[in-house]
Amino acid sequence: MLEAAKNEFATKGFDRATMRGIAAAAGVDAALVHHYYGSKDDLFLAALEIPFDPRTVIPALAEVGMDQLGNGIAATFVTLWDVEDNRLPLVAMLRAAMTNEDTATLLRNGLARLVLDTLSQVLDVPDGRMRAQLVASQLLGLALTRYLLALEPLASMPPADVVAAIGPTLQRYVDGCP
Amino acid sequence: MLEAAKNEFATKGFDRATMRGIAAAAGVDAALVHHYYGSKDDLFLAALEIPFDPRTVIPALAEVGMDQLGNGIAATFVTLWDVEDNRLPLVAMLRAAMTNEDTATLLRNGLARLVLDTLSQVLDVPDGRMRAQLVASQLLGLALTRYLLALEPLASMPPADVVAAIGPTLQRYVDGCP
Repeated sequence: MLEAAKNEFATKGFDRATMRGIAAAAGVDAALVHHYYGSKDDLFLAALEIPFDPRTVIPALAEVGMDQLGNGIAATFVTLWDVEDNRLPLVAMLRAAMTNEDTATLLRNGLARLVLDTLSQVLDVPDGRMRAQLVASQLLGLALTRYLLALEPLASMPPADVVAAIGPTLQRYVDGCP
Repeated sequence: MLEAAKNEFATKGFDRATMRGIAAAAGVDAALVHHYYGSKDDLFLAALEIPFDPRTVIPALAEVGMDQLGNGIAATFVTLWDVEDNRLPLVAMLRAAMTNEDTATLLRNGLARLVLDTLSQVLDVPDGRMRAQLVASQLLGLALTRYLLALEPLASMPPADVVAAIGPTLQRYVDGCP
């Protein structure tokens, strides 16, 4: 089912992929897909092999304290990306999104939406989407420079130092900077 | 000559491309290439069609005042990327660097080096390279979210608001954050 889901999301994009279509491609009943994976969002996260669910992790970080949210997001992001097995499917998606409009749409309407919608809901302010996108700009730029381009010394910087560097940036965006 | 240069940089990378090889490919004397374009760095910038030379722009921004450098870099970057004609060759290079190791090396050893070396020289501190790379992480992430993925509302945010949002981030990195 996961292989069918990966294929369906990659070829049709998030919006046009259906649980029914994925079930058909896997040769199983749609009810079985729902039973094992829950919603289409759940299945999408499983297909990406992301070990965190942003819909629970982000609110949990906010519970710790809104004044710690920037550091919490930075620490979660670096923890996720520093492990090669987690990073590889994300790097593949980011690469594909750079060169393929369909995958760019998948990233916008799938992963980015899950993260950005969750974060802007947690922020609960009129410009929450903008603040969340500024957070995303720093995180994706870190992914690019530290992991994809592997610029030194940034690529070998200890995780705690990276969090100390970008955490306050994220906090400022979360708080609404200008 | 510019076409020959673009081709030589793209196929051989920055380090292995030579003025002599570019001249030969263009069917002219190497002295002519030097006369028209100066150094290999100059020719590389011309081939990328970038209207600013980071080797003069960054020191000029620092002259205005080191406490204004973050805003100055942010404003220069947004001014450059907001014009489609300037953006297109940069987007093409960034896209190619995501998917092709040779172009990634070209970006690291060519453009990134020109910008990062210049900025870290201007900063003139032991961890200048790290600070410059943190600046690059925010700028490249902005390029990705505002221009390549075109996330809304960030993609339509007025340039002055973008500068107000990321300028202080860059200033913090320039100042040495932790």
